[in-house]
Amino acid sequence: MAVLTSQHDDFPRWYQDVVAKAELADNGPVRGTMVIRPWGYAIWELLQAELDAHIKRAGAENVYLPLLIPEGYLRREAEHIEGFSPELAVVTHAGGKQLEEPAVIRPTSETLFGEYLARWIQSYRDLPLCLNQWANAIRWELRTRLFLRTSEFLWQEGHTAHAAQGDAAAYARRIHADVYRAVLEGVLAIPVLTGLKTEAERFAGATTTLTCEGMMRDGKALQLATSHELGQNFARAFDITYTSESGAVEHCWTTSWGSSTRMVGGLIMCHGDDAGLRLAPAVAPAQVVIVAVKDDPEVLATVERLERELDELGIRLRVDRRTDLGLGRRLTDWELKGVPVRLEVGPRDLAAGTASLVRRDGAPRIAVALDDAAAGARDALGQAQAALLSQARSELERRTVDVETLEEAIEASGEGFARIDWAACGVEGERRANAVGVTVRCLMRADGSIPDTAEEDDLVAVLARAY
Amino acid sequence: MAVLTSQHDDFPRWYQDVVAKAELADNGPVRGTMVIRPWGYAIWELLQAELDAHIKRAGAENVYLPLLIPEGYLRREAEHIEGFSPELAVVTHAGGKQLEEPAVIRPTSETLFGEYLARWIQSYRDLPLCLNQWANAIRWELRTRLFLRTSEFLWQEGHTAHAAQGDAAAYARRIHADVYRAVLEGVLAIPVLTGLKTEAERFAGATTTLTCEGMMRDGKALQLATSHELGQNFARAFDITYTSESGAVEHCWTTSWGSSTRMVGGLIMCHGDDAGLRLAPAVAPAQVVIVAVKDDPEVLATVERLERELDELGIRLRVDRRTDLGLGRRLTDWELKGVPVRLEVGPRDLAAGTASLVRRDGAPRIAVALDDAAAGARDALGQAQAALLSQARSELERRTVDVETLEEAIEASGEGFARIDWAACGVEGERRANAVGVTVRCLMRADGSIPDTAEEDDLVAVLARAY
Repeated sequence: MAVLTSQHDDFPRWYQDVVAKAELADNGPVRGTMVIRPWGYAIWELLQAELDAHIKRAGAENVYLPLLIPEGYLRREAEHIEGFSPELAVVTHAGGKQLEEPAVIRPTSETLFGEYLARWIQSYRDLPLCLNQWANAIRWELRTRLFLRTSEFLWQEGHTAHAAQGDAAAYARRIHADVYRAVLEGVLAIPVLTGLKTEAERFAGATTTLTCEGMMRDGKALQLATSHELGQNFARAFDITYTSESGAVEHCWTTSWGSSTRMVGGLIMCHGDDAGLRLAPAVAPAQVVIVAVKDDPEVLATVERLERELDELGIRLRVDRRTDLGLGRRLTDWELKGVPVRLEVGPRDLAAGTASLVRRDGAPRIAVALDDAAAGARDALGQAQAALLSQARSELERRTVDVETLEEAIEASGEGFARIDWAACGVEGERRANAVGVTVRCLMRADGSIPDTAEEDDLVAVLARAY
Repeated sequence: MAVLTSQHDDFPRWYQDVVAKAELADNGPVRGTMVIRPWGYAIWELLQAELDAHIKRAGAENVYLPLLIPEGYLRREAEHIEGFSPELAVVTHAGGKQLEEPAVIRPTSETLFGEYLARWIQSYRDLPLCLNQWANAIRWELRTRLFLRTSEFLWQEGHTAHAAQGDAAAYARRIHADVYRAVLEGVLAIPVLTGLKTEAERFAGATTTLTCEGMMRDGKALQLATSHELGQNFARAFDITYTSESGAVEHCWTTSWGSSTRMVGGLIMCHGDDAGLRLAPAVAPAQVVIVAVKDDPEVLATVERLERELDELGIRLRVDRRTDLGLGRRLTDWELKGVPVRLEVGPRDLAAGTASLVRRDGAPRIAVALDDAAAGARDALGQAQAALLSQARSELERRTVDVETLEEAIEASGEGFARIDWAACGVEGERRANAVGVTVRCLMRADGSIPDTAEEDDLVAVLARAY
């Protein structure tokens, strides 16, 4: 009997099954919240470490701003409060008394960043000021799905201030390319389309929104990370100014950018199959599992030797010595959990002086000489990482079609992505598509590159159904 | 003019000054909350990484439980709610409506751990289950002080379940010794007294509480981390049971243990002096600062060479090329920020083929040959780490006195720690000491080792004023 509902039969049910059975996460007791279990949290930690290292290389420093925001702060930026008001969780009582002013749990820390950037920036010497925060945030959602959309989520949000518009624009693009795209493709092995959001899809207050859009195995799009130029809008709302070298007081140009635990949902849905997760080795809590097939002294000694050798190679590792459980059940379990490479050691393997090496991404099972098994597993990890990216890229290409009319685009969105001249769709076409649940995921140039502005001529729009 | 109030004149004011002027943290807009700035957050990140690595080596896995807890959950464990009720922040509205059941922002995740441990543990095969969480928590405090006691704080809390009492006891002690004491002394260079809490000071619901107590430079104690044996109390309250090998259903034995951003406060107050922070190299965001004394081509070339060499040694590094600012102001600033080692490069140094090496912990300034400067700075870091620990240990010893009566103990608590036979103090003496603001920090054996229980004969009590 299959452990999971098949993707083809019911993709949302498959997702729910795999999240539960691979022990990634449970529902929390308060509606829409999430309990992240060790296997799921370890994936997030590895992903977070990669994002954090890339963010630091891009020159941003981490800070921590408080969870609670005075309600009055959110009224300062009219556009901001309109966007978030129905999503807010409000603390009215604390310390046994009603609060004089209610406090809101951050839906983002944007208003606090505004407040403190204004305090910390005095002169051109303080610019650029590039800050990032790792934190939890709450947005009360009506329909929630573990990792993809939860009332509470874990994320990073970056906020930067610059002296010139060009500096802000370049930084928003740098984060988009060198952090988000680099990690999505290089670490999670998720190929992404990159481009600009239309005005309708743009973040409130942004002048430009850059997005990374991935394709899930049901053909739907998942927005995985966005990076915004905020012009001087945000700096005006919060009075973020600096004194220039000439002594004039000027408003800063700012950016903001974010990514969240949603990326874990993307990892699951971009690579998973009917047998369970298929984890990219770079974020697999265990990259290799060594399975002792039988409770036999020679088998156990060999398992121990391989454990030592793989450990010396710095590979994250589990060893399965549960020989009192059925082998089939154990292998099914490691497949469900998505461990990229499995080394099986049994008496028959040993008789031949080999171990069996199985790659979760679908390469044929091979026998490797015991002396080469550790190095073979290491090499298989590199191959598995590349194979997942290339399989996902083929799938993305296969399910992306060029169309000429809006009707064809909407039709094609049932199966995957549709590329159409933005001129042939336009704001009016976008509205009609939205009415039937299809959205413009991004605008790009015909060669796939990112336009300078959404107003450029000859842009291509990518339409899809989305999470 | 001194940058800071002197410690001798007004220690609390010195603390407030150094937190602000070294740009560690600001007050948040909601009462008692904290904005952690890049320099302060980088210290926390380095400390957190060390704690996390030690926790993982002790076999615990990280999870994430939701911020919000249904109010009803807190009523399950009567002792628990009594301890926390006046400290709770309550969410009554979310998504634009009043909630059917109010939700509490976690003061700890203890009740949620109870709930999920009960779900996740079925059989003896699932034990021990050792979990840890890094998160924010809120306890509404009346008197707050940045890092030391804030309404919102960042922390880790571990919760583990075991099949036998002895396993739980051993694990609580392992965390206390191999994680907390190891990191406090080995990383933060804070020598600690370790022992058991008295019944009055024990965590509600704990059968044994192990503590690490540090001495600050005003002679007061700071509790830096605690590890609790909870017996079967917690397992009974949450029905955490397992089926043993023989098929019987048994309650688990559990532990919990925590440490927080308060440790950063301990680092500041244990080592800081009138010139500012003195950071332990292991958690210094910059371990070495290279200061270009003059805007001179040869100076700048040498600075660049040293930068490259130190970078190759894997040393965290800042380079100060702000030669348009006064040198004195720049040096004062790096002292304030507590950078452990400073390399100054000026024309006079170059003429002698040397750089000046200054250790923030107070070793005399020395000239090092340029060819040896990078290695010299690296060695100085090791020496500075050891010197801070040894200075703090001397101070702890100097200010700890053996006394025979409670009156002497209370008197001595004005200057430091007092050691007294627990039999000469007792529960009644503890109450009288508490009435004048003095507490029993811990009980230990006469040789300083940790008793098995607080009921052992011939224990020594350490009394002090505390944060």
